[in-house]
Amino acid sequence: MSSPSPKAIQFYTAGTPNGQKVSIFLEELKAAYGLEYGFQGLSFAKNEQKEPWFLEINPNGRIPAIVDHNRNDFKVFESAAILLYLAQHYDKERRFSFDPSSDEYNEALQWIFFAHGGIGPMQGQANHFYRYAPEKIPYGIKRYQDETRRLYSVLESRLTGREYLAGPGKGTYSIVDISTWPWVLWHPWAGIESIADEFPNLEKWLRRIQERPQVAAGLNVPTPYKPPKSKEEEEEAATAGRAWIMGGGDKKD
Amino acid sequence: MSSPSPKAIQFYTAGTPNGQKVSIFLEELKAAYGLEYGFQGLSFAKNEQKEPWFLEINPNGRIPAIVDHNRNDFKVFESAAILLYLAQHYDKERRFSFDPSSDEYNEALQWIFFAHGGIGPMQGQANHFYRYAPEKIPYGIKRYQDETRRLYSVLESRLTGREYLAGPGKGTYSIVDISTWPWVLWHPWAGIESIADEFPNLEKWLRRIQERPQVAAGLNVPTPYKPPKSKEEEEEAATAGRAWIMGGGDKKD
Repeated sequence: MSSPSPKAIQFYTAGTPNGQKVSIFLEELKAAYGLEYGFQGLSFAKNEQKEPWFLEINPNGRIPAIVDHNRNDFKVFESAAILLYLAQHYDKERRFSFDPSSDEYNEALQWIFFAHGGIGPMQGQANHFYRYAPEKIPYGIKRYQDETRRLYSVLESRLTGREYLAGPGKGTYSIVDISTWPWVLWHPWAGIESIADEFPNLEKWLRRIQERPQVAAGLNVPTPYKPPKSKEEEEEAATAGRAWIMGGGDKKD
Repeated sequence: MSSPSPKAIQFYTAGTPNGQKVSIFLEELKAAYGLEYGFQGLSFAKNEQKEPWFLEINPNGRIPAIVDHNRNDFKVFESAAILLYLAQHYDKERRFSFDPSSDEYNEALQWIFFAHGGIGPMQGQANHFYRYAPEKIPYGIKRYQDETRRLYSVLESRLTGREYLAGPGKGTYSIVDISTWPWVLWHPWAGIESIADEFPNLEKWLRRIQERPQVAAGLNVPTPYKPPKSKEEEEEAATAGRAWIMGGGDKKD
């Protein structure tokens, strides 16, 4: 285990959509309740997420993960489980979440699982085939870009007449949005250049949430969020990821 | 919406791992508490899961889904959200689940999300490239079989000294096991012929749970569970799936 931190919650992360879900929610809890947290960025290039001390925290060897030194060093892995844990213990007024005994809670879970089992894994595969795979396989690129678009179309329908994904009426901003938003933000990385024409409600939702200062702050943990600004920068970033994959960085511990 | 059913809970499914998670838990609740349910098998060949009446129940157009006529026709999609919903309302003695205010509940969520975002999607891709894809793409087959094995290795470690995935001590049989088990059962369909040598704890867990009569009963909903018994039967089943994919059955609604 890592050495105890002066902050109650220690957060292990990297600048990826799954990490950003948690950093955004931690920033929301900090602004709303004064919750403090420390963080440590893990280097995929150095394969730090597979080091024994970190496997004690997340046996799956992936970011994000947290250790709550407030609550007997309780460890949580899987981004969505972290959001639900933080909501349970630190969103006491339920400003961003729902009471577990309510139907709203289960409705929220349905969309959280939709994002966790659909958008994340499928868009992740689009990233892989479009950016990282050592050979260009058109079948793989098309399969996962198509599926990502299909999943976006489900969100687009959901957001017709709604501002947020869960909650009564037009919805309320919650961990459901937070669990989905960073993936949608990263759509260009999967080779989906624009969503404005095809998914106008989703695009408005993306902008609406991006305006929150806590979201901007969360995107800068552990390092400033700087999406590639040109094809050259994109290719440079993809080459680094590809080198890591070719070197076996994504392989079994 | 479908017409009201005489049973309180109406379950829409097919004989796949995600459907079997729910049918197994419904059978457990039936044996433990006398819960009754009706079910309807949906035909992928006829694309019934994309028909408008079903999209009212699950906007993602996938099985499984339930409608609870006991509770104001409440609708639930995403297999894991269904398990948690049924636990909340029908596992009153928490024989198969955990109190949402407990740390055990969050620990359970971590492994449920691990299965939902990892094993299901990745093993599903192994099925696709190994069985259904119209072209044989060795890179895709290897990528997803390797990742499925890596995820199994995480379960194998978890089950060292434990009988079940969640709960104190050696663990207690719960919805965490139920959410994971049908995928592990179907490992041969992904081209992983045996798990006994590589993952002995996982194999024992597979057999331990398979012995429960409720599990056997759940596997026979909506139709008897008959894994292919020969290479010829496997090829016949794969050809049917492939025809469906080539005909656009898995495409956007």
